[in-house]
Amino acid sequence: MKLRDLAERLRCRIEGDGDIEIRRVAGIERAGPGDLTFVANPRYASHLKTTRASAVILATGHDVGPPASAAVLRSVNPYQSFADAVALLTQSVAPPRGIDRLSAVASDATLGPDVSIGAFVAVGAGARIGARTTIYPGAVIGPGATIGEDCVIHARVSIRERVQIGHRVVVQDGAVIGSDGFGFVKQADGSHLKIPQRADVVIEDDVEIGANTAIDRPAVGETRIRAGAKIDNLVQIGHGVAIGARSLLAAQVGIAGSTTIEDDVVLAGQVGVAGHITIRKGVVATAQTGIPNSVDAGELVSGYPAIANREWLKSSAIFRQLPAFKHRVAELQRRIAELEEKLAAWRIPLDR
Amino acid sequence: MKLRDLAERLRCRIEGDGDIEIRRVAGIERAGPGDLTFVANPRYASHLKTTRASAVILATGHDVGPPASAAVLRSVNPYQSFADAVALLTQSVAPPRGIDRLSAVASDATLGPDVSIGAFVAVGAGARIGARTTIYPGAVIGPGATIGEDCVIHARVSIRERVQIGHRVVVQDGAVIGSDGFGFVKQADGSHLKIPQRADVVIEDDVEIGANTAIDRPAVGETRIRAGAKIDNLVQIGHGVAIGARSLLAAQVGIAGSTTIEDDVVLAGQVGVAGHITIRKGVVATAQTGIPNSVDAGELVSGYPAIANREWLKSSAIFRQLPAFKHRVAELQRRIAELEEKLAAWRIPLDR
Amino acid sequence: MKLRDLAERLRCRIEGDGDIEIRRVAGIERAGPGDLTFVANPRYASHLKTTRASAVILATGHDVGPPASAAVLRSVNPYQSFADAVALLTQSVAPPRGIDRLSAVASDATLGPDVSIGAFVAVGAGARIGARTTIYPGAVIGPGATIGEDCVIHARVSIRERVQIGHRVVVQDGAVIGSDGFGFVKQADGSHLKIPQRADVVIEDDVEIGANTAIDRPAVGETRIRAGAKIDNLVQIGHGVAIGARSLLAAQVGIAGSTTIEDDVVLAGQVGVAGHITIRKGVVATAQTGIPNSVDAGELVSGYPAIANREWLKSSAIFRQLPAFKHRVAELQRRIAELEEKLAAWRIPLDR
Repeated sequence: MKLRDLAERLRCRIEGDGDIEIRRVAGIERAGPGDLTFVANPRYASHLKTTRASAVILATGHDVGPPASAAVLRSVNPYQSFADAVALLTQSVAPPRGIDRLSAVASDATLGPDVSIGAFVAVGAGARIGARTTIYPGAVIGPGATIGEDCVIHARVSIRERVQIGHRVVVQDGAVIGSDGFGFVKQADGSHLKIPQRADVVIEDDVEIGANTAIDRPAVGETRIRAGAKIDNLVQIGHGVAIGARSLLAAQVGIAGSTTIEDDVVLAGQVGVAGHITIRKGVVATAQTGIPNSVDAGELVSGYPAIANREWLKSSAIFRQLPAFKHRVAELQRRIAELEEKLAAWRIPLDR
Repeated sequence: MKLRDLAERLRCRIEGDGDIEIRRVAGIERAGPGDLTFVANPRYASHLKTTRASAVILATGHDVGPPASAAVLRSVNPYQSFADAVALLTQSVAPPRGIDRLSAVASDATLGPDVSIGAFVAVGAGARIGARTTIYPGAVIGPGATIGEDCVIHARVSIRERVQIGHRVVVQDGAVIGSDGFGFVKQADGSHLKIPQRADVVIEDDVEIGANTAIDRPAVGETRIRAGAKIDNLVQIGHGVAIGARSLLAAQVGIAGSTTIEDDVVLAGQVGVAGHITIRKGVVATAQTGIPNSVDAGELVSGYPAIANREWLKSSAIFRQLPAFKHRVAELQRRIAELEEKLAAWRIPLDR
Repeated sequence: MKLRDLAERLRCRIEGDGDIEIRRVAGIERAGPGDLTFVANPRYASHLKTTRASAVILATGHDVGPPASAAVLRSVNPYQSFADAVALLTQSVAPPRGIDRLSAVASDATLGPDVSIGAFVAVGAGARIGARTTIYPGAVIGPGATIGEDCVIHARVSIRERVQIGHRVVVQDGAVIGSDGFGFVKQADGSHLKIPQRADVVIEDDVEIGANTAIDRPAVGETRIRAGAKIDNLVQIGHGVAIGARSLLAAQVGIAGSTTIEDDVVLAGQVGVAGHITIRKGVVATAQTGIPNSVDAGELVSGYPAIANREWLKSSAIFRQLPAFKHRVAELQRRIAELEEKLAAWRIPLDR
């Protein structure tokens, strides 16, 4: 595709030769002739001088020019233009429409038009699958589950009985939705009686769920992932949890039962959140944070137990200096003892 | 079901109208007319005044009454009564008995009466499956594996070759039992030679294993999960580990190889335990604790490296104050210097 | 097998009766008559006095003798000899060669000689599978994926479209290779637009990947696991990550996107590594370490944020003493106040 045509479709202004042929999108360090690259993260700006890319997407206000050898596409949102360029310049293999002859679809399941059901997919009694939804090989859809339109359910996903999934939901391979919550009652003899976990899981529209993530169902009430939330790989969502709209949960995050994560929350990798609390709108937690109590809207928290990120950064810096700090206090102690000894030696009466 | 009949089956005493019709069990915040709810956790007691539930399960000694509108079921163990009520008032869909025609069961496998083998289940040579056990679609049972009676093996579980599973064991979707332990020998050239991992995994009676959890087999000896242990989702059990009877491992816990967890231990979410150590009977570790060394029976531990919870709480509180603390020490240092200066200014001989 | 023959095959020197019959390899605590055991880890040396094993593998220089009842095999590398002994004395069940009639192999897929394709395996269009590779039941190989020779792909693994896998690679059950990276662009309305993740994943020769581990593909460039790296269970490898040759990643490690782990790095369990950084050759991180910034070659790091292990050990020891330390500073403060008061009481002019 000519750079001129690409620019038009990405709604970017060209600086340079519009006749350049662009074949691929590439990272700035690996890009070569024929490649379009981009700089959105300032960390990579220094590579602009050396990149061999034919063209670079840059922010409208970005004032570091690339070398003469690369054309520029000016964008108000370079990340967005990059995403659009990837969509334009790569192709995904569309799976075949229709129902594979080696699948097992219950006779009373309802399938919308243009679905794609892969090999070894099991669809339980009474399940409903919306128009244009793709289900890749080996996925298991339980009895009574409903999946909306234009969803992509990757290979070997489990969607358990009666789980409700909205439209345009993407579930990566191996994820489990609707497994039993971890709910037991301790008996007098120390053993644990299972509380039946038979209530609902609702995944709203435009949610993405990562590979091998697990989302539990509760005994009563519901587990709900609100519209537009994005959940990465190997995340644990306990029974009765609610995840707010547009919230982002990075890989290996764990949320214990009955906790509410409100809208627009960001939890970085390996964060853990205790049960029965509320993380309010817009909270951000940095990686590995452990959150034992509810957090107010808009806070940025870190550490375990989680505190304000600014405090945590200061305390962590001092943690590192603790040996020197301890030495310093020992030195003060010595000097005080010396002062005390001197004063005692002068034999001046203590109480006057 | 009338409240009177429900009370009888739950062995609770009624306070209120026994003729109320109960249709559902619900959480106290969402319950409405026709719902039975419960308060076991004091955190939720304040909702008693506003709940719209028709009836509430309360502890015998619980002295905060519900509003006149809700009847009460008095229970010596509200959690237990709640669990029983859920079992009575919800129904689980029983999978069809028999062997799905799209399964692959080895000709020399032994299946007990009334088993249910779903679509796309593979059962290897010489495997044995006990009476009334259900295996959901897509599970893979390796050669020589044995599964006891009344087990529930959910969709897409892997039970590897020769793994032994007791009675009434529940395994959630995607769990892997008997994968190769992470055992390698470093060679002179820096590469790693795999130690063949071919020994046993034993899962005793009444164990529950969560979704996408992994339990490794060792090179020698065995990995063993003792009777009644409950393991949540995404947990890692290393090769040669033993988990004690009735122990509870919350989600994303990791236990390194050759470690023994004794009976009645509770490990909260994301706890990590080093290899080759022993966590003795009744130990409790709070969330995200990292345990590098053996822990004595009955201890409550926190932090990394794990210390007594009481100490950890105190140290964590001070961690947060470290910047103020550092300021305070600097202030002391200044005052000591001032004192020293004064005394020097008086020209009193230092050594007498 | 006679101990004499075993010694010859393991290239060990015998101390004791070569006619002993050895039937099994066992851990030193469980070993009995007929068993060969070993001591490589000093932690287990004390068991030498009480072991009931018939023979023990010991390091050439190991100077603590076993009791008269056990013969000794002297080895320059006891771990290696142990690995070899396990391979000699146990047998693995070879899966049947050929293509199971209940698999779904695309007509244009290429299969090398002597492959083993299990039941319910799906192999996509244009995929290539090398000679003698085994694919266990329920695995899904995407369109255009390539797998080399002598690989073992365990049950229910997902290898997504166009993923490239080298020779002698082992993938444990449930692992996902090539899932979509977690890449979104934030829109003006707060929603997240998915950046299509369609670039490459390359797994080089002799890699092992653990159960339920997830390895993401990037939008551009590649995710690469270099030759001989070993990755344990439930590990997260973000999009665009490179893992160096012979590196070891223990269970539940997480690596965020675009980070490079160089050769011979060791990350212990539950370590987290931030995105867009470089962990240089030979770095070792102890369990649960959180690494926010690049680390220089050969460093041993701990804690979060990660610092030199030696410093972290010291600071952690003081962390534990913080309450006592705080008490001590309060005591110093009291003594300084007393000194100040005394000097003030003497009415000696402050400024002279």
